[in-house]
Amino acid sequence: MDEAPFIRPDCELEGFGAEDARITQIGDTYYINYTAVSIHGITTALATTKDFVHVEKHGSIFVTENRDVCIFPEKIGGRYFALVRPVPRQIGQAKMWLSASEDLLHWGEFTPVAMPRFPWDAARNGGGAVPIRTDAGWLVLYHGADRESNRYSMGAMLLDLEDPRKVVAISREPVLYAEAPYETTGFYPNVVFSCGAFLVDGVVHMYYGGADRVMALARADLRQLLDSMERLA
Amino acid sequence: MDEAPFIRPDCELEGFGAEDARITQIGDTYYINYTAVSIHGITTALATTKDFVHVEKHGSIFVTENRDVCIFPEKIGGRYFALVRPVPRQIGQAKMWLSASEDLLHWGEFTPVAMPRFPWDAARNGGGAVPIRTDAGWLVLYHGADRESNRYSMGAMLLDLEDPRKVVAISREPVLYAEAPYETTGFYPNVVFSCGAFLVDGVVHMYYGGADRVMALARADLRQLLDSMERLA
Repeated sequence: MDEAPFIRPDCELEGFGAEDARITQIGDTYYINYTAVSIHGITTALATTKDFVHVEKHGSIFVTENRDVCIFPEKIGGRYFALVRPVPRQIGQAKMWLSASEDLLHWGEFTPVAMPRFPWDAARNGGGAVPIRTDAGWLVLYHGADRESNRYSMGAMLLDLEDPRKVVAISREPVLYAEAPYETTGFYPNVVFSCGAFLVDGVVHMYYGGADRVMALARADLRQLLDSMERLA
Repeated sequence: MDEAPFIRPDCELEGFGAEDARITQIGDTYYINYTAVSIHGITTALATTKDFVHVEKHGSIFVTENRDVCIFPEKIGGRYFALVRPVPRQIGQAKMWLSASEDLLHWGEFTPVAMPRFPWDAARNGGGAVPIRTDAGWLVLYHGADRESNRYSMGAMLLDLEDPRKVVAISREPVLYAEAPYETTGFYPNVVFSCGAFLVDGVVHMYYGGADRVMALARADLRQLLDSMERLA
């Protein structure tokens, strides 16, 4: 374990801290996007590393208020994609959008993800783990909160491999919700929240925070997970 | 006068309308950014034309909530710049940021404009006219609203020609505020709001909306305007 943080807040846009890092490996480089919080607002910053010893910061890629960014691990149709979560003040809901980029530093082509919403993510949703490529589509494990109790759960959807703007399948019910004591009690009760998952021998391994206090691991058989989803037209 | 609108809302992100267009000429192309409003939020869209007859839409370049975008009329240090106005919900204030782009479609490098704030723009500020190149710097005519009465006025500042992130001079008082009856009375009282200005023979011509009801023209001698500004360190 490092004695000092690997990424340390050191500029004006990180005045209140850096949090919720998500890591996407592309080639031999790890792209780390994280939420930078300051008096100016909640923005998304990008850093890169090849060895987790040396890190290079690349500044702000999405502005306030935007967090829960998940960069896809390869180009699709010639450009990079990310799930972003802009938060409107006057009109609209906090939810996932897609954005595209040619260089990972400059982003555009924003379009809301046209997905069904359920009671468990009715209040807001946003990215969770970095999307995982499967034969059936991009597996997206995302978070949502309900209106009744602000309970944070994890859902699953599949995006089209060639065009991630198309949602091809989705889970009506959360694939994970707070039920264990270390998920229902803590700094922020009734929260499961993931920033990363990966596939090993057909099993999805998802690391997640419980009640903003502990780190936990959940596993799911990929085939069973995919079979449980509802296909969309 | 056209019988039909030149730019007509015709897609999901323009469901509630398209407004506040700002036009930047770069070469033989006019880049028109405008606020697109829909159930998804308030975003900024980009369109281009060469003749104001045929128009091509390029989709969303800044997401919700972001409006009052002003694209600079030339590359600076190899890339394009724009003033943007993201609106945070949780932390921060609605104010101007700078963003940079290599292709005008994908944007990043967000940084807040480090400018003094005054009583007249204490509630919020944002872009007005497209920046005008002068020998002394980029002349930015921008809007602001006060806290007491939500009165919208126009201010002026100068940004460094080579590095627009540096504010080199600013007007402490608005260069224009609502005082005439057609500015103090109307659909939205006590508002002067500009989306465009240009320089002819050393005179700034600024067109602006009065009380969201009428269009008006204000003129100012450029040299007097520059002389009236306070130089910043």
